[in-house]
Amino acid sequence: MKRHLDDLFELLSIPSVSADPAHKADVQRAAEWLKAKLEAIGFAAEMVPTDGHPIVYAERIVDPKAPTVLVYGHYDVQPPDPLELWETPPFEPTVRDGKLYARGASDDKGQFYAHIAAVSDLGADLPVNVKFVIEGEEEIGSPNLVPFVRAHAARLAADAVVISDSPMFAPGLPTLTYALRGLAYLEVQIEGAARDMHSGAYGGAVPNPVHAAAWMIAKLKDEDGRILIPGFYDKVRPLSQGERLMWRELPFDEAEFARSVGVEATPGEPGYSVLERRWARPTLDVNGIWGGYQGEGAKTVIPARAGFKFSMRLVPDQDPEEVYAMTERYLQEIAPEGYRVRILRHHGGRPVLVLIDSPPMQAAARALEAAWGRKTVFTREGGSIPIVAEFQDLLGAPVVMMGFGLNDDNLHAPNEKLDLVNFEKAVEASRNFLRILPEHLG
Amino acid sequence: MKRHLDDLFELLSIPSVSADPAHKADVQRAAEWLKAKLEAIGFAAEMVPTDGHPIVYAERIVDPKAPTVLVYGHYDVQPPDPLELWETPPFEPTVRDGKLYARGASDDKGQFYAHIAAVSDLGADLPVNVKFVIEGEEEIGSPNLVPFVRAHAARLAADAVVISDSPMFAPGLPTLTYALRGLAYLEVQIEGAARDMHSGAYGGAVPNPVHAAAWMIAKLKDEDGRILIPGFYDKVRPLSQGERLMWRELPFDEAEFARSVGVEATPGEPGYSVLERRWARPTLDVNGIWGGYQGEGAKTVIPARAGFKFSMRLVPDQDPEEVYAMTERYLQEIAPEGYRVRILRHHGGRPVLVLIDSPPMQAAARALEAAWGRKTVFTREGGSIPIVAEFQDLLGAPVVMMGFGLNDDNLHAPNEKLDLVNFEKAVEASRNFLRILPEHLG
Repeated sequence: MKRHLDDLFELLSIPSVSADPAHKADVQRAAEWLKAKLEAIGFAAEMVPTDGHPIVYAERIVDPKAPTVLVYGHYDVQPPDPLELWETPPFEPTVRDGKLYARGASDDKGQFYAHIAAVSDLGADLPVNVKFVIEGEEEIGSPNLVPFVRAHAARLAADAVVISDSPMFAPGLPTLTYALRGLAYLEVQIEGAARDMHSGAYGGAVPNPVHAAAWMIAKLKDEDGRILIPGFYDKVRPLSQGERLMWRELPFDEAEFARSVGVEATPGEPGYSVLERRWARPTLDVNGIWGGYQGEGAKTVIPARAGFKFSMRLVPDQDPEEVYAMTERYLQEIAPEGYRVRILRHHGGRPVLVLIDSPPMQAAARALEAAWGRKTVFTREGGSIPIVAEFQDLLGAPVVMMGFGLNDDNLHAPNEKLDLVNFEKAVEASRNFLRILPEHLG
Repeated sequence: MKRHLDDLFELLSIPSVSADPAHKADVQRAAEWLKAKLEAIGFAAEMVPTDGHPIVYAERIVDPKAPTVLVYGHYDVQPPDPLELWETPPFEPTVRDGKLYARGASDDKGQFYAHIAAVSDLGADLPVNVKFVIEGEEEIGSPNLVPFVRAHAARLAADAVVISDSPMFAPGLPTLTYALRGLAYLEVQIEGAARDMHSGAYGGAVPNPVHAAAWMIAKLKDEDGRILIPGFYDKVRPLSQGERLMWRELPFDEAEFARSVGVEATPGEPGYSVLERRWARPTLDVNGIWGGYQGEGAKTVIPARAGFKFSMRLVPDQDPEEVYAMTERYLQEIAPEGYRVRILRHHGGRPVLVLIDSPPMQAAARALEAAWGRKTVFTREGGSIPIVAEFQDLLGAPVVMMGFGLNDDNLHAPNEKLDLVNFEKAVEASRNFLRILPEHLG
């Protein structure tokens, strides 16, 4: 473990900030470091060039007939700003109170490295083939990953994909995430008069795009949180009674949650708990709105233009393309007369559901349980990781989301950390998983 | 006329933007310029300090027994933004095609200055006493004017008040405005969570203030233009059949109006013509809205805060205080649960109705007719000049709104202008009015 930590410290010392061109050489250096490390433990490794930062691909084929596990991770990190808020420098890994502080400690170097350590520990006893895909562009939207996976689908073939880039539900509680929400993100631009008009001279006789925006938004979602787009819920897979019961067992207090986000109430669709609404129900939120005068004081203007951006989080079995189409149709329908309305699509992503009963998930649950000495919980996530759907579809393998982070890890913020016990349990769980997977796959 | 124009150019060159603290010295400079100019043509002039920008007061008493005319104007101007849309800089007056382009050309420097020019032209032949009240805070709601008028009501006593701060109905058509709409302007600030939240992880479980704003706006005015605040229409004086007939004679084409503002339709209250809706019906318009991400592309955020500003144009006999009270009550009622909603009042003003038959109005009609060689029309205005109601009430004198602007003057917008012919006719009409007023007051 001492050796693994020393290695991880080296990796964390490299400021591989993918968003910052000034760190391009550091990103490259991190990739080189990983390639060398993987070669040192018996992998055939290469740095695959892309239009951006390289992807590190490595494989160790112990037996062409043995099961294959593909581990995905990312070696790039978020920018460390604001630097002055870090207690110790972001690229000088430091242990305090059993926690390892460094940019990338939890997101994602510390998490994916646990699997490298596990494979290293197993050495000649590794019973499965292992492939690593570790990219350097996750924090800038993975622009080159899907093309890479598509181009090399045969080579990447696997029986299970493992991703460790998510949090555990609570400290000490082994967690498998089995579903993610998808995304459809749109923008509506509305034009009224050709120019801003005086609201006194013209009020009552010219269209006001802010009102048009408000009427449209009010017709997208009602005050009960119900989305009003016709057909929107048609393909929503109902929550099973089993899932609802399972989640009710989780240590989660709605009042405590409300306090943590600074609200008195958590409005939303009636009949669903907060976790159910965040994990298993689709939502629609306006992410931004604008129009007219936003400064201090009063300006008596009828704006010529207004607009808003909104996104829908989708759940299985909703399809983003279908949702885009029905939403665009509906927006055209509810656009009031007398306005020019333009609708744009931004990025989207499919929702993901991994079957809890699938052999890799069952193996992972057992592996985690053995490491932590506690029963594994199955959770969903409200957010989207577009690559998960791609892996599942392109490789046809279940994606095991085996997270070892915690919600207080300060991802994307100063003083990012990873609890050392979580790193140790991660290595242990990964070893367990690799060992028992063949048994589950039969 | 050349001399008057040179003087007006000097005044227009001073960027007296009352709303912008950076222009405080310029506002002061404009006041000083006016004081000096009025003194130069034989007026006793002073700059009356206020809590904000000074009021220029000047008087020339030709005979204590002669009738007295008080001319009101404002030397402050709207901010010139967006600067990049001006063809020539806003504070470098430029003549193109017989039009004088500058911020303030029409609103209001070019208009009130016509009366200074007229008095200057009449010189020793001036048959009436003239008083000027020229303020520097009209564009920020005239916070100090009413206290000034109240405190000096005796000194400001007049038989007629003249204000030139409105448009003519059509080019070449002499126009007297006999009614104005009032104003009530509010701002609504809405808070949800304590900070912006990730729309994936939290969507469905935290309040979204943009939706709250949209729901509230949709409940303020419906798609037919009907205002939904209970009691809002109770005190609205119905349009007389005489007015409707008089306005139908005006050269006004609704399709042409729609084209002129760049719209295909002119949505609004059913059963009323465009002119009736702009002049004699109250309205409600959101003047600005904001919340969340307004930049390029997509950001998956649930905003912590949103807000909007909106204003209502009021008609006789609506009372702004009553409207404020009913609106605030209603906003509290429609504010959805789970949000912190704050309501602020900005400036307001009472609607005005001046009797067409009053002697100063009849004198003005004749004076205009003589200058333009065409019969004067009587119109209302959709905008508000809050001080008109105050003058009428505090001084007990009819307010003659003798406008020389045109509807395409780009008030409050880039490329504000005043047609030079209108300035010339304004000077002539003002001379006529001052000359014949004693006869009408008889």
